[in-house]
Amino acid sequence: MTYDLIIIGGGPAGITAGIYAARQKLNVLLITKDFGGQLNKKAIDISNYPGLDGISGLELVQKFQTHLEKQKIDIERDKVGKIEKTKKGFSILTENKKVFKSKAVIIASGSDPRPLEIPGEKEFLGKGVSYCAICDGPMFEDKIVAVIGGGNSAFESAIFLSKIAKKIYILEYNPKVNAFKDNQEAVEKMGKAEIITNVVLKKIEGDKFVNSITYQDRITKQEKTLEVKGIFVEIGYQPATSFVKGLVDFNQRDEIKVDFETCKTKTPGLFAAGDVNVGRYKQVVTACGEGAKAALAAFEYLYKQS
Amino acid sequence: MTYDLIIIGGGPAGITAGIYAARQKLNVLLITKDFGGQLNKKAIDISNYPGLDGISGLELVQKFQTHLEKQKIDIERDKVGKIEKTKKGFSILTENKKVFKSKAVIIASGSDPRPLEIPGEKEFLGKGVSYCAICDGPMFEDKIVAVIGGGNSAFESAIFLSKIAKKIYILEYNPKVNAFKDNQEAVEKMGKAEIITNVVLKKIEGDKFVNSITYQDRITKQEKTLEVKGIFVEIGYQPATSFVKGLVDFNQRDEIKVDFETCKTKTPGLFAAGDVNVGRYKQVVTACGEGAKAALAAFEYLYKQS
Repeated sequence: MTYDLIIIGGGPAGITAGIYAARQKLNVLLITKDFGGQLNKKAIDISNYPGLDGISGLELVQKFQTHLEKQKIDIERDKVGKIEKTKKGFSILTENKKVFKSKAVIIASGSDPRPLEIPGEKEFLGKGVSYCAICDGPMFEDKIVAVIGGGNSAFESAIFLSKIAKKIYILEYNPKVNAFKDNQEAVEKMGKAEIITNVVLKKIEGDKFVNSITYQDRITKQEKTLEVKGIFVEIGYQPATSFVKGLVDFNQRDEIKVDFETCKTKTPGLFAAGDVNVGRYKQVVTACGEGAKAALAAFEYLYKQS
Repeated sequence: MTYDLIIIGGGPAGITAGIYAARQKLNVLLITKDFGGQLNKKAIDISNYPGLDGISGLELVQKFQTHLEKQKIDIERDKVGKIEKTKKGFSILTENKKVFKSKAVIIASGSDPRPLEIPGEKEFLGKGVSYCAICDGPMFEDKIVAVIGGGNSAFESAIFLSKIAKKIYILEYNPKVNAFKDNQEAVEKMGKAEIITNVVLKKIEGDKFVNSITYQDRITKQEKTLEVKGIFVEIGYQPATSFVKGLVDFNQRDEIKVDFETCKTKTPGLFAAGDVNVGRYKQVVTACGEGAKAALAAFEYLYKQS
């Protein structure tokens, strides 16, 4: 059988696309391993999803998922390995070696944490190095930890960790941090964080577990070592998009180029919504808006084909 | 005093922009007569705002407004008459003859119902002719009414009216209606509507109140008169954007041209989000997404100026 539309991804963009497409009576399959995407890793409550102020990431995922599952839509718990263009549409191969066919595809597979790529990072993964403060933070009660990065995820992790850790270093490469102002204020208020900028990370060291992180100051060129037990890496995200190579154009971060009015890629019938595309602003509500646009554009595309 | 940012409009786009801008600690004024925009006229419950399934338009407005009013933001209950570019930013004159100044502006003033422009329409406004089924529908219990238009607003009005009126004509100019499929199915199920396509409306007639509407069939060229007591005009929306003439480019429907990644117009520091811009898809969640994008783009613009 051939679906009208396959949606890849179960975060805010994919779920919204699913709700819209199902309500348009399209025959839809949504492929995802888990629901919620980065919402599952939100370190603090969400304050900027309009109408649901102060909701936790997990609660919002639950509301989104319930909303989606009320629709007539097929869901496959798997991960996409490859998308190919066929004569009449698209063929999708999953990691579980299943093949699904459709006339149109929306890629909403989000993005993954970007690694530091310094010595010790891989070695101490799960032994002090973490990409998710909310998952691993509770192990660091009364310890000194470092959060790497100066954006919203880094600051939100620091806010979360301030309830647990003794002290938090926030280490940023640039001369200034760029988290939202409310996040910066919250970090300042909690009084547990020391922000160090102009940092080039050099190495992570330890025994069985992490003991320290070493960096070079970009201005003084001096190397310094901080004694920390936990290192939370929050230097941004990078989508895993090699499965769609050849069908779309990428920017340098492997994000998919789209027309933002419709989320169309360069291949007719193939759309990309949410964090996976080149969009400058990666927010829950912007991902939802793009999911709706992609689904309505896919509907129009299918309507013109029929 | 000069605000960092003035937001014009209190619908989903303006409210979301307000939440985002205030959380960025900008000094913000939001100018609007009322909150909610077209949500106040939603004839049936909203099923496609992710996470709040089956909520009424009025309830959603309430949630949005509460969320906004928790922020530190100034609100002025007025309507904008004119925006002018000054040396350092923008000057805004309201209908109440107040003047406000700001460094950046987000236009999120939505759009108004488009009139039919046929004889009798103005004469019988409020005497059978209406642009809001949810406001005026209850007056037509057990009567025969007509809904003009074949889009979502028209079908949602027909669904709402089916609980009140005896019979509903849906009159559409095109050979096919283009409401969302779920709305079309709901109208069919209720069994009270007759859909007539290829309709060119000619005139509305009556005594003190509307008695009939006359149209020409585009195929047969025959004129027909339908006896109706109510006429609900739902042929789309058109923004009132003359207040910003000279600073932005428009399409033929007076919608403002923008870059959809950031909602920037051609004038630096001036943004347009939601129904007021040329965007193809006009949904609550797409308006919210654009409001967030515009606020973050305005923040970046202001940051670079400072």
